Amino acid sequence: MTDPGTHRGTDPAAAEKQAAAEAAVALVEDGMALGLGTGSTATLAIAALGKRVQAGLSVVAIPTSERSAAQARALGIPLTDFATRTRLDLTIDGADQIARGSLDLVKGLGGALLREKIVAQASDRLVIVADQSKLVDRLGGQVPVPVEVVPFGWQTTAERIARLGASVRPRRAPDGSLFQSDGGNLILDCTFDPIADPAGLDAALATTVGVIETGLFVGMAAVALVAGPDGVARLSR
Amino acid sequence: MTDPGTHRGTDPAAAEKQAAAEAAVALVEDGMALGLGTGSTATLAIAALGKRVQAGLSVVAIPTSERSAAQARALGIPLTDFATRTRLDLTIDGADQIARGSLDLVKGLGGALLREKIVAQASDRLVIVADQSKLVDRLGGQVPVPVEVVPFGWQTTAERIARLGASVRPRRAPDGSLFQSDGGNLILDCTFDPIADPAGLDAALATTVGVIETGLFVGMAAVALVAGPDGVARLSR
Repeated sequence: MTDPGTHRGTDPAAAEKQAAAEAAVALVEDGMALGLGTGSTATLAIAALGKRVQAGLSVVAIPTSERSAAQARALGIPLTDFATRTRLDLTIDGADQIARGSLDLVKGLGGALLREKIVAQASDRLVIVADQSKLVDRLGGQVPVPVEVVPFGWQTTAERIARLGASVRPRRAPDGSLFQSDGGNLILDCTFDPIADPAGLDAALATTVGVIETGLFVGMAAVALVAGPDGVARLSR
Repeated sequence: MTDPGTHRGTDPAAAEKQAAAEAAVALVEDGMALGLGTGSTATLAIAALGKRVQAGLSVVAIPTSERSAAQARALGIPLTDFATRTRLDLTIDGADQIARGSLDLVKGLGGALLREKIVAQASDRLVIVADQSKLVDRLGGQVPVPVEVVPFGWQTTAERIARLGASVRPRRAPDGSLFQSDGGNLILDCTFDPIADPAGLDAALATTVGVIETGLFVGMAAVALVAGPDGVARLSR
């Protein structure tokens, strides 16, 4: 886990991310069950939530990654799991791209897309926190769509995804080996031309044998809190 | 792995399964790359293939389970993998249900559905071997559709599958713990009323967050070799 504090000097969007994270945590009410996202902005939100918990806020949370679980534990945020409850009130998470208007998302560059999607799907409300560099007219293009796939036969799965119009690259760890998700699966980073029909592409990928989940989050975000130099804009569908 | 020899006395369909398995292995030609299925009839086919290999047939094979891999190795059938080749000529596998006419299938009661589906998808031709008790007018009903799901949050995934009209039961190991597939995932046995639209149900399940793969094999089987008391019928679409 990167210490968000070390970002402040080097990440020009650090202050914006901080503002978006704090705006999201202000939506949390006493007694809520929360989903905790993964990534640099979600990390800031978990830190802000920790301060509210230390000040007496009562919540329980399900984290979307081992990293976020460790951070929450260290801050004293009580964790729960889906064996205890199958619905959450609110999930706060980041995104790699946010489409203006629809709030469709690309997520999962951090490698936690599967748990992020399961937690988002189990939430009454998904709130996205981001700096304004993530806002786009169309998803895809420069930013690849991560697709989590079964390790067995991934090469044949990659061939079938390529036939959907993608340039497909298996994600690698810093040592050059294939990157493994928290669930032990592989991630294929799939670069598409700007995506005209995210729902259709998501369905085509989901029905491809060997695909577990895609980083396209279609119709899932209720609100996006997007921070720029002039403050935090609240976008909703 | 059950020794098929021990079935002969107790399984009334043993002779029929044997006939179907031998008819399928007769389709194998020298130089082919094969997929090897999993289950009681596939086991008989692997045994028959082993005899042809010992008699000089040259093939390579990708097995769909650790069980089938062990059996093939013991018989001297050379194995390969998807890192070496991404297409197979022919896969021989069993099925739990075969729909008359369409040859749509329910598979995976043996727990290997994910690898079976990846191997089938990578094959130019999927040949199903079965006794005639597996032939039905409509899939579903008495026989549950196995659905392989991500362990994380499986309870919330099960709830969403139930909303598609299924009675959902997590598969358990003999000791009562949750059954784990070869890939470390869970299997939900989903009982539906007789299924009017297998392709539609398969798509609805595949796009359910948390679902990895379903035991519905729609439009995948090229041929079914179905044995009854009067011999082996060759069904094709």
